Amino acid sequence: MSLGEIFLWELLGTATLTLLGCGVSANVILRKSLGHNGGWLLVNIGWGLAVFAGASIASPSGAHLNPAVTLGLAVNGQVPWSQVPVCIVGQFAGGTLGALLCWAAYKLQFDTHDDPANTRGIFCTGPTVLNAPWNLVTEIIGTFVLVLWIILSPGAEAGPDGVPQFGNSALGYAAVAFLVIGIGNSLGGPTGYAINPARDLGPRIAYAILPIYGKGSAEWGYSWVPIVGPVIGGMLAGGLALVLPVS
Amino acid sequence: MSLGEIFLWELLGTATLTLLGCGVSANVILRKSLGHNGGWLLVNIGWGLAVFAGASIASPSGAHLNPAVTLGLAVNGQVPWSQVPVCIVGQFAGGTLGALLCWAAYKLQFDTHDDPANTRGIFCTGPTVLNAPWNLVTEIIGTFVLVLWIILSPGAEAGPDGVPQFGNSALGYAAVAFLVIGIGNSLGGPTGYAINPARDLGPRIAYAILPIYGKGSAEWGYSWVPIVGPVIGGMLAGGLALVLPVS
Amino acid sequence: MSLGEIFLWELLGTATLTLLGCGVSANVILRKSLGHNGGWLLVNIGWGLAVFAGASIASPSGAHLNPAVTLGLAVNGQVPWSQVPVCIVGQFAGGTLGALLCWAAYKLQFDTHDDPANTRGIFCTGPTVLNAPWNLVTEIIGTFVLVLWIILSPGAEAGPDGVPQFGNSALGYAAVAFLVIGIGNSLGGPTGYAINPARDLGPRIAYAILPIYGKGSAEWGYSWVPIVGPVIGGMLAGGLALVLPVS
Amino acid sequence: MSLGEIFLWELLGTATLTLLGCGVSANVILRKSLGHNGGWLLVNIGWGLAVFAGASIASPSGAHLNPAVTLGLAVNGQVPWSQVPVCIVGQFAGGTLGALLCWAAYKLQFDTHDDPANTRGIFCTGPTVLNAPWNLVTEIIGTFVLVLWIILSPGAEAGPDGVPQFGNSALGYAAVAFLVIGIGNSLGGPTGYAINPARDLGPRIAYAILPIYGKGSAEWGYSWVPIVGPVIGGMLAGGLALVLPVS
Repeated sequence: MSLGEIFLWELLGTATLTLLGCGVSANVILRKSLGHNGGWLLVNIGWGLAVFAGASIASPSGAHLNPAVTLGLAVNGQVPWSQVPVCIVGQFAGGTLGALLCWAAYKLQFDTHDDPANTRGIFCTGPTVLNAPWNLVTEIIGTFVLVLWIILSPGAEAGPDGVPQFGNSALGYAAVAFLVIGIGNSLGGPTGYAINPARDLGPRIAYAILPIYGKGSAEWGYSWVPIVGPVIGGMLAGGLALVLPVS
Repeated sequence: MSLGEIFLWELLGTATLTLLGCGVSANVILRKSLGHNGGWLLVNIGWGLAVFAGASIASPSGAHLNPAVTLGLAVNGQVPWSQVPVCIVGQFAGGTLGALLCWAAYKLQFDTHDDPANTRGIFCTGPTVLNAPWNLVTEIIGTFVLVLWIILSPGAEAGPDGVPQFGNSALGYAAVAFLVIGIGNSLGGPTGYAINPARDLGPRIAYAILPIYGKGSAEWGYSWVPIVGPVIGGMLAGGLALVLPVS
Repeated sequence: MSLGEIFLWELLGTATLTLLGCGVSANVILRKSLGHNGGWLLVNIGWGLAVFAGASIASPSGAHLNPAVTLGLAVNGQVPWSQVPVCIVGQFAGGTLGALLCWAAYKLQFDTHDDPANTRGIFCTGPTVLNAPWNLVTEIIGTFVLVLWIILSPGAEAGPDGVPQFGNSALGYAAVAFLVIGIGNSLGGPTGYAINPARDLGPRIAYAILPIYGKGSAEWGYSWVPIVGPVIGGMLAGGLALVLPVS
Repeated sequence: MSLGEIFLWELLGTATLTLLGCGVSANVILRKSLGHNGGWLLVNIGWGLAVFAGASIASPSGAHLNPAVTLGLAVNGQVPWSQVPVCIVGQFAGGTLGALLCWAAYKLQFDTHDDPANTRGIFCTGPTVLNAPWNLVTEIIGTFVLVLWIILSPGAEAGPDGVPQFGNSALGYAAVAFLVIGIGNSLGGPTGYAINPARDLGPRIAYAILPIYGKGSAEWGYSWVPIVGPVIGGMLAGGLALVLPVS
């Protein structure tokens, strides 16, 4: 597969991911939305199925959709380092594009929201208690579980391009969705589980540039945590899997 | 497969879809129903499993159940244009039939509801903020994701009749259900996600003709949006997929 | 398979079904239970997964677990009429046994419940608005969808004993669970969806004979509806499927 | 597979199980967590997907993750008794390790919780009504269903090492997750469903030794019930399955 095709599929898949992911957050947060106050389980199922939809669409490129996954697989030797930069650029571009589309879908709800300064949480994550080192620990642990599972899961045999393939059926990527729902349920409480730099920085950029009615700060001071934490966690998992006695 | 059989299966599948889909809305809205106030996640899981049930039953015809899917697949070259009209007529007829059956199942709850003028939402969709162009945008985006996924998903290889087949097991159509739940969770907030003209117009006709106790308006002024939006979104997806480098 | 083995597996599977199904109802209704007031979606997922567990265990006999399924399949020609009586006796015996075990699991919660006269709903169904003909309509429609889906679903090819087999994997029966959750979400609001005479009469007998602290009436006057309705619905579905052009 | 490898995989899988399982409990209980008061269904889906994640990771060793499963399979003749001790030691060690990691992920939320004396429920189970014999009955019934299903389920054919394998796809272990969610929904109300000695004792030890701000008692007086009950239930199921006419 050409680098251009990898870029295209990662962009399309990650755009689907953040369109649907930021969408469920908008649905729960914005006052004039049918899912307003729908609860944490709704949010997590929404993000999990956003990964399901995006990964199914991006299956030709292996459907990383996440720089932490790409880097973890590269450390593990499953992705050539020469593909890493184009993958990651496609993921960040897609992450921003999906968030722009989410805003278009919820334009009227943004315009009529009664607390517009607090809409940043629709786009990107933030901690309930700010303390960068411990926030990093939370993001590292969550991403470590994600990438370790992707590498060790029984369905994760390498496909023709050397990237994991979750089966050849439409249902295959439901396994990834279940894992993401699980991580959100279990480890998302402290920081909102970025566990993916492209899912956080891409929409944060969209929030900064979009003409959202009455919007507040994009909180750039925190933005490095959901980048550095997932990258560390993913690379740790890729490295640990190298020394495990996998047959 | 004969045109008559295509008509029959699309009618039966779409009737199952709107029987169960309008059913969950009735369950949540009507006061003397056990699921009253059951929440947005319940509604979405209900509609997703309605698609699951209807699609499993209609698998012989490819289980479109949705004119936007049929038109998107026709644009994409997967369905002959000669089959399109009979498919769509079967879908609209089924959509109305299922809603009639839903009313029969909830007859006593309709008769004892305390706000009967506001029962239209059980049958068809409406926006939380009325603005036809932006409402169209929301429906276009949601249907675009649905049809693009159907075309690109790993399980969507064409079957013997040239229509996508989601596996040969009872669980195959669960993938479609997961996608519909995801779109509902994420993009259903502004307009109630018709994403299917037959799911909206069919039951709207049923609401207009049924002797529902104290019923209100069928809101015909909005009824073109959940037809035109999904048709545009589905055909855009079918067209985009033509130019993607799918191997 | 001998009639004795059919009896054994149907008993074991239906006992698992009502143990877990009545269990989730007990969990939601009883005051000193961790799932108290857990909501309608929890109840439906509970009953759906109760079918999943029971059907997986009873797969050797085809896992009907429901006289309406057995009779529908017999009308459809997939089960010999000579097996029907022993199947149904096993299902009713299992339905009662599972409810007895459920009471043992929740013994302390029954003893400390603050409204013991209203515990019948843990064991058997009842209408929110009593009107036997319309209650029958609701039960007929729900069971019709269940049995039609079982017969037509892509995974329902007949196994070596002439009964449907939902795949040969542990996940196969998840499809049946999804359908039951869907029917509960969508058609369970008016009558609590027995859609299975053994699931209703079996536990009703258990409620009548168990020494439950402060228990109320078993409401025998309504008990024929969740028997007659499902039987009619199941046999209608079995008959309709005979005339459909299934290849 | 060597005993060392069995130990390693059971430790890694059980650590994943309690990291995510205790994580969802922390998310629901701790005040400054995004899932606070998320409800019983969220808790059960969290624990079910914790089993899914842990079992997928530990598939090389058969993914017992639970001494009651190991002992039940040993009684049933599917696991050699010589492997049982190392399996169980790995499970308890992993159960404690995962709980330590969970505390690290939620460190800031523990430090800012407003009722720190009542955080034991994040780590280990307890009855809503204390009565050891009936609490034992509840744990025996729940574990019996779990282990009987594992042995009888269609996907549970023995793999090359004589232990059950739930398919060779990433989705295979979703079946186990569905069962655990079902048992939690239906039988978890009275005692919080340990149904696994390692899931209860491992985190209880972690609670006792961790420097949790303002923590309360580990309730050692009850700790034997979630060990003895699951062991009895699992061995009963393994024994019953020996006499069933499984072909």
